Amino acid sequence: MKVNGKVYRSIWLADDGVGVEIIDQTQLPFRFVTVRLNTLDEAMDAISRMLVRGAPLIGATAAYGICLGLREGVSSESLEKMAVRLVSCRPTAVNLRWAVDRMLRVLLPLPEKSRLLEAYQEAARICEEDVQTNEAIGRHGMALIRDIWHSKQKNGPVNILTHCNAGWLATVDWGTALAPVYAAADEGIPVHIWVDETRPRNQGAGLTAWELVAADIPHHLITDNTGGHLMQHGLVDCCIVGSDRTTAAGDVCNKIGTYLKALAASDNNIPFYVALPGSTVDWTLHDGLAEIPIEERDELEVLRIRGKDEEGRVCAVAIAPEATPALNPAFDVTPARLVTGLITERGVCAAGRIGLLSLYPEQAQ
Amino acid sequence: MKVNGKVYRSIWLADDGVGVEIIDQTQLPFRFVTVRLNTLDEAMDAISRMLVRGAPLIGATAAYGICLGLREGVSSESLEKMAVRLVSCRPTAVNLRWAVDRMLRVLLPLPEKSRLLEAYQEAARICEEDVQTNEAIGRHGMALIRDIWHSKQKNGPVNILTHCNAGWLATVDWGTALAPVYAAADEGIPVHIWVDETRPRNQGAGLTAWELVAADIPHHLITDNTGGHLMQHGLVDCCIVGSDRTTAAGDVCNKIGTYLKALAASDNNIPFYVALPGSTVDWTLHDGLAEIPIEERDELEVLRIRGKDEEGRVCAVAIAPEATPALNPAFDVTPARLVTGLITERGVCAAGRIGLLSLYPEQAQ
Repeated sequence: MKVNGKVYRSIWLADDGVGVEIIDQTQLPFRFVTVRLNTLDEAMDAISRMLVRGAPLIGATAAYGICLGLREGVSSESLEKMAVRLVSCRPTAVNLRWAVDRMLRVLLPLPEKSRLLEAYQEAARICEEDVQTNEAIGRHGMALIRDIWHSKQKNGPVNILTHCNAGWLATVDWGTALAPVYAAADEGIPVHIWVDETRPRNQGAGLTAWELVAADIPHHLITDNTGGHLMQHGLVDCCIVGSDRTTAAGDVCNKIGTYLKALAASDNNIPFYVALPGSTVDWTLHDGLAEIPIEERDELEVLRIRGKDEEGRVCAVAIAPEATPALNPAFDVTPARLVTGLITERGVCAAGRIGLLSLYPEQAQ
Repeated sequence: MKVNGKVYRSIWLADDGVGVEIIDQTQLPFRFVTVRLNTLDEAMDAISRMLVRGAPLIGATAAYGICLGLREGVSSESLEKMAVRLVSCRPTAVNLRWAVDRMLRVLLPLPEKSRLLEAYQEAARICEEDVQTNEAIGRHGMALIRDIWHSKQKNGPVNILTHCNAGWLATVDWGTALAPVYAAADEGIPVHIWVDETRPRNQGAGLTAWELVAADIPHHLITDNTGGHLMQHGLVDCCIVGSDRTTAAGDVCNKIGTYLKALAASDNNIPFYVALPGSTVDWTLHDGLAEIPIEERDELEVLRIRGKDEEGRVCAVAIAPEATPALNPAFDVTPARLVTGLITERGVCAAGRIGLLSLYPEQAQ
């Protein structure tokens, strides 16, 4: 997507073919800063500190992290050590494990001397496939938005609520939840986006709003408290969110607060869609609430908020008394019963085992 | 309640018997600052800019605002003008209109020369009654908390989720939603409070957490996104929130986001209680969603967050791109069907016309 007229992806190989460049997303929307990753440690740090985030982009960064790690040692033992370290960076997103597993599956059978080159090629393939996957999600989701537009007799824009950032910054390009939005805008379908702020890290206010400004798509920022009220008053036509991990039964683990919006959508008969690449489906899981580990992050993310002060400096401000502790679970699980449909690269299906297997029959045992 | 060892209310007559003193709640939790109001305009400004907030405290401040206004003119015409101006300060909270109506009902029949003295006495009565009302709410709500404690076999504290601030700072003393918490703590029942941050103005992080620190009651701050996840995992025993306006049918208008927590409580079979003085019931309304006007506040409350920076200065930081607009409705309506019970000064009742009339039979037509 374009930033100040120049086309970017969220991750790319440096001109020297060695380092990997990313956008430091902790600096958005205030500063557009790119960062070069030179080592596995730097890649892990970028994932842990969320310079990169979003399940697909975490996967892509992990793949390149293995490339960088191989520069320090190509033995099978060091490959397996890298894999363990990478997977521990973020426990919830399944794409991290998926990408690391895929790299190992490709690299371990190879002779050591071929591994480095092949790793870079496989990481590039993961990125390319992600872009194609998201374009397909965009196409399938756009058809749903077009249907809504027609069903409201092209009367006003289609009002779409989204939570967190599942835009191009969360993937290599296009995004998952925002891919249908970009595709609809390209088709000339008028859309208006309600952007959930998404505390504690404000990926809605900082990243989704920034993407939409850059793409010139009409939107309003709202607090995480507001979506239910808008739905009660007919101001939301549908919700589209992303997923960090989806069970084989269609339960969706996504940014904390997603469940509350799904409840409100259900209570007001508003379609609630989840856009996801097949790689976020964890076919080993059947009960999202019981089985998905929920990452608990630093309480300081809740107790302090980053922003730009009146003098233009980016700083963190404390919002609570010093003696107050906080709890910071990063994700929640939305049960399949609250999900109207899953928008995947292979089409739209019901949120459940039968629906998913209709699109991914190779997963049937 | 005590602040640094000294007993305070949220509003009190100055020692000279003329001015009115309040706590500037926009400075909490960072600074404890009291402000003297000398004129009707200053009282209106304190209400509009939310130096005071919370339905009962807004009512008390409006009552004293009329006293201050009468110092500039005691005619019936000026009294009625004052009333109109005061009521326009905050359109949603019914106590504002209730307190102003009550003052006019008492003052208009009096000879002009008696009005000023009687106004101060009536305002003081409104404050005293509020304190007694909240103490009674505390007693009735405490019994519910005690029941929960017994039903969990005194196993761990009773985990109570609250949204926004309905503590003593929202009233003259004790609070509404927090009155049962204070009463339970006084009875030796262990409680732990999940404090919703309550964006955009963070009354949870700033005021409720501050009250709980001062009262030494265990609590954790959570983002507004988190309550549903905690409920799914059995970490919430009940919710107690306040109300800015309650319809005769039991619909509850309270801080934006209350509806989402009520949905989650219902989905997880967790009791959802609303604590309110009878004065917040608007007996003229029957459909909260259709009939209650929802105040829309400045978008800057969403786009910026106040906090204390690392150098200890209180400042506002921007969290979104400059080109991003925001929408800021301040309240939402929770339908009666999602409310387990109303905790009033006269006891606990079902959220509905029959329940309310069982406690307030004088309202039956």
